[in-house]
Amino acid sequence: MTAAKYDVVGIGNAIVDIIGRCNDAFLVEHGASKGHMRLVEADTVKSLYDDMGPAVEMSGGSVANTMVGIAAFGGSAAFIGKVADDEFGRIFAHDIRSAGVTFTTPPASGRAPTARSLILVTPDGERTMNTYLGVSPELDHGEVDAELIRTASVVYLEGYLFDRPEAKAAFRQAADIAVKAGRQVALSLSDSFCVDRHRAEFLDLIRGHIDILFANEAEILALYQAKAFEDAARMARGDTKLAVLTRGSKGSVIFSGEKAATVAPEPVRSVVDTTGAGDLYAAGFLYGLTAGKPIEVCGRLGSLAAAEVISHMGARPEQSLAKLAAARGL
Amino acid sequence: MTAAKYDVVGIGNAIVDIIGRCNDAFLVEHGASKGHMRLVEADTVKSLYDDMGPAVEMSGGSVANTMVGIAAFGGSAAFIGKVADDEFGRIFAHDIRSAGVTFTTPPASGRAPTARSLILVTPDGERTMNTYLGVSPELDHGEVDAELIRTASVVYLEGYLFDRPEAKAAFRQAADIAVKAGRQVALSLSDSFCVDRHRAEFLDLIRGHIDILFANEAEILALYQAKAFEDAARMARGDTKLAVLTRGSKGSVIFSGEKAATVAPEPVRSVVDTTGAGDLYAAGFLYGLTAGKPIEVCGRLGSLAAAEVISHMGARPEQSLAKLAAARGL
Repeated sequence: MTAAKYDVVGIGNAIVDIIGRCNDAFLVEHGASKGHMRLVEADTVKSLYDDMGPAVEMSGGSVANTMVGIAAFGGSAAFIGKVADDEFGRIFAHDIRSAGVTFTTPPASGRAPTARSLILVTPDGERTMNTYLGVSPELDHGEVDAELIRTASVVYLEGYLFDRPEAKAAFRQAADIAVKAGRQVALSLSDSFCVDRHRAEFLDLIRGHIDILFANEAEILALYQAKAFEDAARMARGDTKLAVLTRGSKGSVIFSGEKAATVAPEPVRSVVDTTGAGDLYAAGFLYGLTAGKPIEVCGRLGSLAAAEVISHMGARPEQSLAKLAAARGL
Repeated sequence: MTAAKYDVVGIGNAIVDIIGRCNDAFLVEHGASKGHMRLVEADTVKSLYDDMGPAVEMSGGSVANTMVGIAAFGGSAAFIGKVADDEFGRIFAHDIRSAGVTFTTPPASGRAPTARSLILVTPDGERTMNTYLGVSPELDHGEVDAELIRTASVVYLEGYLFDRPEAKAAFRQAADIAVKAGRQVALSLSDSFCVDRHRAEFLDLIRGHIDILFANEAEILALYQAKAFEDAARMARGDTKLAVLTRGSKGSVIFSGEKAATVAPEPVRSVVDTTGAGDLYAAGFLYGLTAGKPIEVCGRLGSLAAAEVISHMGARPEQSLAKLAAARGL
């Protein structure tokens, strides 16, 4: 096994976020489940957009956000994802590259448009996502850059990829390449509704092919169909080599073989928009892990990055996470 | 003269802002004059965008921002401006309409794209703009909605329109319609470099056709080629019925015939991004004026709106300005 060129290579949906504010009644009226991601078709995007208030456009995508976070810590990251040759595709490519992440997947022409997610933020800071995937899942076998995957210490994949067969195939191919190259494979469960859609396959993956599992409380409860966090956490610990479980304002719990760590959340003055909280926690954790830090420090780096991203609109850090970490001696 | 349907109708460039952060050296390297707006061609936009860091996209345009501010105070506003039938055009139209502003100018097809401004914000919060006008100036005579202009108490025009002959023709046509309908005509000088480009025409307009003049300190100094603010202010007072002069952190000065008022700036905890400060000051002032408030109150409403917009990224208010004003008893 040769030395890794990248700390982490991520594969996920390449999405531009369209972020606006609304009240809880608006979500109910439009059939959106608060705090979740739902997939919608182009016509739903259009009517929802017509109804919602003024918005801002910012690059997003769960794994893409995580890769940007790793770069903001000073780690080396690459991203594989599909955009179209259109305005949003150019925005996505610009933002991820200028954040220091390697992004070489060629844009698709003449197919569906670049993916977009209408993200509605309620007064409590919670985000609810309505995602039109567009061209994003069209990551067929020929487009997963095997060489890139082989040169990363960790390959990081999002559960959302299972929502479309082409993306799922890319996910499985990438995991196989990584395993054969002796690299670690990390998975984020993405969303509890997504877990409900793919529970059996996710369990199979986690028990067989995944080295590092990221999940929040709702996702791990959904995976094991458990009622108590402690029960789900025990099962996750039994099924994985490394399980990283986030609990929002309750902090996070990490299990690594015999070791376990409980990490307090980083204090936040005001929660503006929770979009990207889990993505940035994963960024801090994976950065720490590939830098050889103890799991508790990895968790603290995760909490630090999550706190930064929920203190402003948008799912990507506005500050140098390396500086924030240094200021705390991490 | 029939009763006005709108408090203000504004005519200006219809722009989507692409806002990113940079340091002062980046501006020097790229030949941008800090604090100013420069017009650039498509290839300069492309190379500057390639070089700049991650950005967010938000609707902008000077007069458009002012109209959104008036609506945020509870006033009635309409906007005339040209976008293309493209992604940025849809974003612009969505944002201004959902903010409560009437916007009925049809998008152009098959011509240039929607205008965009690369806005670079330095650590001190100052913004420097690089604007590609695209289809925006193509407001020819047939497209200025005469009926709309006649139904507004005030027609508000931006100096930037003078930078392109088609837009200038629309400006002059709109001013004529307003004068004939017995409405007031207001002008913003936009930018001191813009004043340098059109000084003689601006002076002629101000002395003949403009009822309300908005200018900041640099602009009014440029207009009269004066060195001291007091000299320029005295000349503005002699040339106009109502002159509204803003001075950044020094507040504003208003001259209305025999009356004069000096208004303190609204305190701001932290200046994040000055984009839109002048636009929102004009919004507060025009809202107050059309609501029949004394000039000093108009100035305080302007200061309040400016303070809100410079406390966050982007040129449009994030809060209800009506609520902010009510909380201060204005």
